[in-house]
Amino acid sequence: MKVVIIGAGNVATHLAKALHAKHVQVAQVWSYHYQNALTLANEVNAKAIESLKEIDQQADVCLIVVKDDAIAEIAQQLKGFKGLIAHTSGAVNMEVLSGVAEHYGVFYPLQTFSKHKILNFADVPLCLEANDTSALHTLKELAGKLSSNSTEVNSEKRKILHLAAVFACNFTNHLYALSAELLKANDLDFAILRPLISETAAKVEHALPLDVQTGPAIRNDEQTLKKHEELLLQQPQLLEIYKTLSNSIKKTR
Amino acid sequence: MKVVIIGAGNVATHLAKALHAKHVQVAQVWSYHYQNALTLANEVNAKAIESLKEIDQQADVCLIVVKDDAIAEIAQQLKGFKGLIAHTSGAVNMEVLSGVAEHYGVFYPLQTFSKHKILNFADVPLCLEANDTSALHTLKELAGKLSSNSTEVNSEKRKILHLAAVFACNFTNHLYALSAELLKANDLDFAILRPLISETAAKVEHALPLDVQTGPAIRNDEQTLKKHEELLLQQPQLLEIYKTLSNSIKKTR
Repeated sequence: MKVVIIGAGNVATHLAKALHAKHVQVAQVWSYHYQNALTLANEVNAKAIESLKEIDQQADVCLIVVKDDAIAEIAQQLKGFKGLIAHTSGAVNMEVLSGVAEHYGVFYPLQTFSKHKILNFADVPLCLEANDTSALHTLKELAGKLSSNSTEVNSEKRKILHLAAVFACNFTNHLYALSAELLKANDLDFAILRPLISETAAKVEHALPLDVQTGPAIRNDEQTLKKHEELLLQQPQLLEIYKTLSNSIKKTR
Repeated sequence: MKVVIIGAGNVATHLAKALHAKHVQVAQVWSYHYQNALTLANEVNAKAIESLKEIDQQADVCLIVVKDDAIAEIAQQLKGFKGLIAHTSGAVNMEVLSGVAEHYGVFYPLQTFSKHKILNFADVPLCLEANDTSALHTLKELAGKLSSNSTEVNSEKRKILHLAAVFACNFTNHLYALSAELLKANDLDFAILRPLISETAAKVEHALPLDVQTGPAIRNDEQTLKKHEELLLQQPQLLEIYKTLSNSIKKTR
């Protein structure tokens, strides 16, 4: 299988490297910034291209791995591509690719990608959507090279997954950041929280979060809730978040 | 070293078992419910006691591992205990034990404990506070049996740690629960989010959360934020949390 990668950002880099490691040929890399395309192409033994017109028509798959609002415009420039075209976004409808190629689809990795952290794709859920059985077959084959965890998800459900991921990942990381801020303001090192963060995530590996909720709100421990709110009186934003989330937890009692 | 455990709940059980596993003698267990004391005592080769008056005056340490608002009352019943008395709470001042014993302190494990999940104490941060050097020495010795990660923290800072832990653990787990709720309402399985949750926690093992924040709010991606808010129009509580946390993230840009 021969793949072209459109994009050279975080996700594009992780995907291209993972494909290359699994002996899938990454033929070409394109980026708005040619220098970035060169850098990534170099790492995966591909050719950087300056223009989308140079795309290899022999390639089986073209993956559009760019910012959500750039997908439609790039897709239009790929009109007439002979292979399968897929984007990798959680929030963009598959039909943005309709009319661009005969076979199209979505290849959405439900994971958070960081620049400097190596990621094992083996258990990354790959959410696939395709416009026909041929496209689905190709996407499944590609997914199978990377992960044992691929699943068909339509555009509507994919949007829900993307939203749920904001709660479970982006908001969660922000809570880590707020706790780090609290510690820093009191000359305490964030490192002391790391075993707790790790265990909190580990707990839901085999349980449902509702079943393992702990803390003053779920116990309705008004005394502790009040003490905590008093500690946050000088930080109205933290106080608002504390109250909002505590009230939300109480409703699950 | 000979230890008495007051309490037979989640934390008491984990602590007693961990001490027993490290060959620290758990001499006695007391609980409001004698049956619970019996069960735990049985597991750690200790004697269950029905009354606090039966406490072994030869014990080196008495650990009060009960609900926060019960600590003071139980401490009063232990007045005159010859060894060291410590409680294990994040939110209760050490001075609640003043006048109860000559040597007293706090032994606060900064971790989340679940009934059915075995926990490795080796890297649990144990936050110690003591009223004198003798008590500190004893607490350090006890902590050293369980974990390589003990540190001195005074009552004021311990309260901040406890509050930060609510953000990093209790609130985080609630966000997992909200994402699970979103998925369930759309016939999606929570399992698909688990690799993301695990990676989100793993990312801050070597980085600070502020440096690895991702998602639409930190990119100020108004289009996606709007789409997400539209998806939540029928769930005002989730919408409020979405807006509150997204706004809080934007302020860190």
